[in-house]
Amino acid sequence: MARLRASGAVLLGKTAVHEWALGVSTLNPHFGPTRNPHDTERIPGGSSGGSGAALAAGLTVLALGTDTGGSIRIPAALCGVVGLKPTYGLVSLRGVTPLSRSLDHAGPMATSVEDAFLLLEGISGFRRETAPRPRILLPKNYFFEDVEPRIADLVRAAAARLGKTESVEVTGVDAAWNANTVILFSDAAALHENQLKEHPEWFGETLAERMNTGFKHRGVDYARARDVQRDWTAYLTALLGDDAVLAAPTTPVPATVIGDREGTVLGRLMTRLTAPFNLAGAPVLSVPVGNIGALPVGMQLVAAPGRESILWSVAQGL
Amino acid sequence: MARLRASGAVLLGKTAVHEWALGVSTLNPHFGPTRNPHDTERIPGGSSGGSGAALAAGLTVLALGTDTGGSIRIPAALCGVVGLKPTYGLVSLRGVTPLSRSLDHAGPMATSVEDAFLLLEGISGFRRETAPRPRILLPKNYFFEDVEPRIADLVRAAAARLGKTESVEVTGVDAAWNANTVILFSDAAALHENQLKEHPEWFGETLAERMNTGFKHRGVDYARARDVQRDWTAYLTALLGDDAVLAAPTTPVPATVIGDREGTVLGRLMTRLTAPFNLAGAPVLSVPVGNIGALPVGMQLVAAPGRESILWSVAQGL
Repeated sequence: MARLRASGAVLLGKTAVHEWALGVSTLNPHFGPTRNPHDTERIPGGSSGGSGAALAAGLTVLALGTDTGGSIRIPAALCGVVGLKPTYGLVSLRGVTPLSRSLDHAGPMATSVEDAFLLLEGISGFRRETAPRPRILLPKNYFFEDVEPRIADLVRAAAARLGKTESVEVTGVDAAWNANTVILFSDAAALHENQLKEHPEWFGETLAERMNTGFKHRGVDYARARDVQRDWTAYLTALLGDDAVLAAPTTPVPATVIGDREGTVLGRLMTRLTAPFNLAGAPVLSVPVGNIGALPVGMQLVAAPGRESILWSVAQGL
Repeated sequence: MARLRASGAVLLGKTAVHEWALGVSTLNPHFGPTRNPHDTERIPGGSSGGSGAALAAGLTVLALGTDTGGSIRIPAALCGVVGLKPTYGLVSLRGVTPLSRSLDHAGPMATSVEDAFLLLEGISGFRRETAPRPRILLPKNYFFEDVEPRIADLVRAAAARLGKTESVEVTGVDAAWNANTVILFSDAAALHENQLKEHPEWFGETLAERMNTGFKHRGVDYARARDVQRDWTAYLTALLGDDAVLAAPTTPVPATVIGDREGTVLGRLMTRLTAPFNLAGAPVLSVPVGNIGALPVGMQLVAAPGRESILWSVAQGL
């Protein structure tokens, strides 16, 4: 906030968030639902759903989000705006109520790539550097499986507009998603343990149930999740190197109907493609690449940790 | 090993280690005890006890160790040689059987500071840089509590020879020691879980009992230990800055009699002053500072992560 004010930003207000930032519908039992401006019967995504909805509705041109499993990129995709989860640690989390200190990333949301990077420079030490157009990698597996065919088509077409694409097999993504879940829920349950036990009524029903799953993990499960994290991060960093980005759908489905699915079911569905990149701490830009009817579709562009500049470079081709 | 051979090192052999590197006596039930050359009824420390004993006995001038809770520094102190636990991640662990990938550090042991740094340059990308003599901080609390008075006197006198000392309060050390224990034992139990359950007979009795304590920690305990790790690392890094080293005893007692104390009791005693610096990933040099009778006494010099050069600089004053 101090950095933003110093950069000349005008703060307009706060936006809604999913309860404790743990969920993707922004159907907050204490404050009511946040609606998707493209179809007000549908969710805006979450947890930074208010930021996505405010941008899509034209209430602001810049917004902030936090992303522990996809909470910047999911609302960006479902609301048809831009979201950027930077490299882990790049943007200070001072003043942010944590969900998981191991996996939380703060970052910009905006209506254009240019604005998102401008905001990133306002809230961090990052400065864009000229980078050659990177190689575009399209995963053969996982990221295009169980994805709505129209979404897969739109993402493949958008990736092809960025340059020649290479098809790659990406291994270990399932393990990475699972490890992100173990660390995220253990961290969240640790943060809220006393309140969950002494004041369960302070939590929405769906949320308390989800957060309580954090207590089922053992220390040895957490230890193994960190092993997966080390190996996956090294693997992805080597795969992407200095000169490649991976293109994939942000979500496998567009915005769902409010209340239709919730909690774990919706969380698993929407974070399946995003959460592996929280575990790796890699920077990911989600950009709109078209619509299915009224509903926007997002594409993720993933770079190796610290390589935000090639995300900016490649997005110039959109 | 490849780096060492490339540097012209001649490999003489392997030395003994405490079973699975989890212990400080190097009283290995499969291979028998390793003895302290200064008093063969006493332990050499551990887990890299063979390296310490070989150096003290003049069998070699350079040796390697790994340090997850003190396993380079403790045998260095008890055998009257030099041990250097570098910054976490500086020396590759390729080829090392892990105890805890979160806390394992490989590093040099030698009979002089000069040799230890020469060896560090041989096994890593580190190169000594000229650094001004740092400020010497002497902790008021924890590190001189429950320490043999003769050890405290020898360490204070050695610190005073390095320059003007400043007295500082160091907060959070107990929490850091506990967090190191949670992470270390969870990681170790995760690595050995199948064997511990299916083949308990493969483990020494004391060791199996200790390692099984890793299963008692919950995921939320591990999560909290990582919070402590983040906060302690930030605190210690700020306390030491670019220009200070902390001086403290390496162990609170000299080498104990073989078999007199073992397992958890001996582990807690000997790692109380060393393990907090594994959690912070900070570089620590242990140097001999005198004897109690025949038994050597070691002093730790601690710098902020990445500041190995000021350890080299300050040790020139010894």
